[in-house]
Amino acid sequence: MSLIVQKYGGSSVANAEKVMRVAERIVKTKKKGNKVVVVVSAMGDMTDDLITLADQINKDPEGREMDMLLATGEQVSISILAMAIHKLGHEAVSFTGPQVGITTDTFHSKARIQNISPRRIQKALAAGKIVIVAGFQGQTPEGEITTLGRGGSDLTAVALAVALKAKHCEIYTDVDGIYTADPRVIPEAKKIDVATYDEILELASLGAKVMHSRSIEVAKKFNMPIWVCNSRKEIKGTLITKENKKMEEVVVSGVALAEDEAKITLFRVADRPGVAAKVFQILADANVNVDMIIQNKTRTHSTDISFTVFKNELQKALKVVKTNAKKLGVGEITSDSNIAKVSIVGIGMRSHSGIASKMFSVLAKHRINIEMISTSEIKISVVVAGDKGKLAAKAIHKAFGLGKK
Amino acid sequence: MSLIVQKYGGSSVANAEKVMRVAERIVKTKKKGNKVVVVVSAMGDMTDDLITLADQINKDPEGREMDMLLATGEQVSISILAMAIHKLGHEAVSFTGPQVGITTDTFHSKARIQNISPRRIQKALAAGKIVIVAGFQGQTPEGEITTLGRGGSDLTAVALAVALKAKHCEIYTDVDGIYTADPRVIPEAKKIDVATYDEILELASLGAKVMHSRSIEVAKKFNMPIWVCNSRKEIKGTLITKENKKMEEVVVSGVALAEDEAKITLFRVADRPGVAAKVFQILADANVNVDMIIQNKTRTHSTDISFTVFKNELQKALKVVKTNAKKLGVGEITSDSNIAKVSIVGIGMRSHSGIASKMFSVLAKHRINIEMISTSEIKISVVVAGDKGKLAAKAIHKAFGLGKK
Repeated sequence: MSLIVQKYGGSSVANAEKVMRVAERIVKTKKKGNKVVVVVSAMGDMTDDLITLADQINKDPEGREMDMLLATGEQVSISILAMAIHKLGHEAVSFTGPQVGITTDTFHSKARIQNISPRRIQKALAAGKIVIVAGFQGQTPEGEITTLGRGGSDLTAVALAVALKAKHCEIYTDVDGIYTADPRVIPEAKKIDVATYDEILELASLGAKVMHSRSIEVAKKFNMPIWVCNSRKEIKGTLITKENKKMEEVVVSGVALAEDEAKITLFRVADRPGVAAKVFQILADANVNVDMIIQNKTRTHSTDISFTVFKNELQKALKVVKTNAKKLGVGEITSDSNIAKVSIVGIGMRSHSGIASKMFSVLAKHRINIEMISTSEIKISVVVAGDKGKLAAKAIHKAFGLGKK
Repeated sequence: MSLIVQKYGGSSVANAEKVMRVAERIVKTKKKGNKVVVVVSAMGDMTDDLITLADQINKDPEGREMDMLLATGEQVSISILAMAIHKLGHEAVSFTGPQVGITTDTFHSKARIQNISPRRIQKALAAGKIVIVAGFQGQTPEGEITTLGRGGSDLTAVALAVALKAKHCEIYTDVDGIYTADPRVIPEAKKIDVATYDEILELASLGAKVMHSRSIEVAKKFNMPIWVCNSRKEIKGTLITKENKKMEEVVVSGVALAEDEAKITLFRVADRPGVAAKVFQILADANVNVDMIIQNKTRTHSTDISFTVFKNELQKALKVVKTNAKKLGVGEITSDSNIAKVSIVGIGMRSHSGIASKMFSVLAKHRINIEMISTSEIKISVVVAGDKGKLAAKAIHKAFGLGKK
């Protein structure tokens, strides 16, 4: 008998009808002879509604009280889902995060799980019950309710799977799995059958909104296989697992396109140790998120530094840099919000040479100029003109044979 | 420095504006130099909305899951109210029932409080904070969330006041206090300044919907004074306390009118020991609530028994009794749903003779026929024709000098 942890997001349980459908899927998994633990998020827009309510009272609420408020969303879901399973004639029991000993640190609204004591869950499973656990929440050792921040329910599911030594963790969404590219941009994109934790981490950081990085990191650390599946279909999704021999045959897993970034270039920055550090410290202090950073020394006493930020933070970033230009010894500052970042990710490119040149030659063939290049072991990113982003992504997707047959 | 427990009902915190008004009142109490513990119910219709949601999923939900669901209503209120107090620049901290150790038995949806461990509240009070506690909820020794049933938040407030040795407990509603009669029926009715626990218990059981009997019983047991006040006004409400000398001067405290009952009469019931017990056991088994019971033996070998039930349970009661008529040895069964019950309550009537005769003569003067009479130490109830109820209540109210000057 296998133990499986399933996680259903808020849109999968947005109303009574959808809740019943999820309940049926859970019961089906149980009937196949599995022990089932289910993690569920708040129903539909409930979390947003609670935030709106709080906003009417206090624009700057204390984290502790906000967590007290938001934790109710998942508590509603678990009880409703348990009632739905009872309705189908099966035994189920719901638990809040605190009730199953999900202990976190004390950082409200972005707490980190420190420990899980699965005794109560194991007892309920042993009694033949389906166990429903509230995602996104835990409690501090002092008994304060905390929430885990963005992607928190995924994290609850993966952490429970690890603590309970589950066979695997299933994350249900409203898409069929993880795709080789965004299907809205590249209709030929196809579902990835299997990928490594690192590939998904790179894809996530490149803007493919699939799962939050934190849960993938935990899954990687404890080698917990994750299935990303469609909650409304009976098809296999994407398996995220550790690297294996067979995978290396696939060179490139996916293409990611990010059109929400802008580029800033600092010209003739003084070429002294510590200058780059100072630049990015100033941006960090101003809460500006920096993505790509490229420096290429081509002169003797100075260098140019380019970096990308989110478009909606461009003005803030420019202001900060310009204010400190003299202190940083920066000669000239330019910016360009008409850019697109195209990336390929694949565990195979580590051992296959010529991937970069193939990518660049595809772009050349389409007369797309490359403005920036950045690489990691399993990723190559290029920045091109904004209006060329989709074309570049499509051409690369095709060149690496990622599309449907 | 006094410790005061305040309780605000759902209608007092139904929206953001009302929540801010309640917060201001709480802060005012704090500023007067008091330690303040606040118990709050779910906002407005939230509990009803949650019940509707559950009903869409499962018409017969498990009590455990229903409690899990309903407990979220109060959890939303406490966090929102704490945020409102923060907005006013004062320190406040919210706690769920389980967090402040409100331990109950295991009877879901109608749990009884067994113990409160006020350590966490005392610590927060010592730190100068206003403490907000979720009403209506607790947890079993095994950590299961329970709710306390009807009037549960009042009970939480009174029990906390007892556990914390508060000076008194303030129950805020949308009326000025407890009245000598229902002001919608008798406009001359005036607010009662002070009453005993027993008087309020009788008034509550007679249909004056003020506070639920359970909380008055607890207050009486531990001699905790209760103020029933208007949350929107700065006037003194009604003090409920133990008997004192001054009170005895007031003979009758209030008049209650109940128009939601019906009468059933069983004629020629066999006059054997145990027959009456059997009648009411059968009704109890069918979940029929019986109010007044009158038996008057006027013949040698049989007796007539009359009793009242709620109108909406009349058909069920009749069916049960008729089905068992033979077994019970009942000769004939009649019913009358056109009745009204008028009662007077007053601690003073114990020592003042002639109260009953005064009440009956008032009715006679208005040509109102009395169908049933039932008395207790501090209460006299009569059943009259349904269309005479309001007239009877008004006449009695006036005769005992209860109206406004």
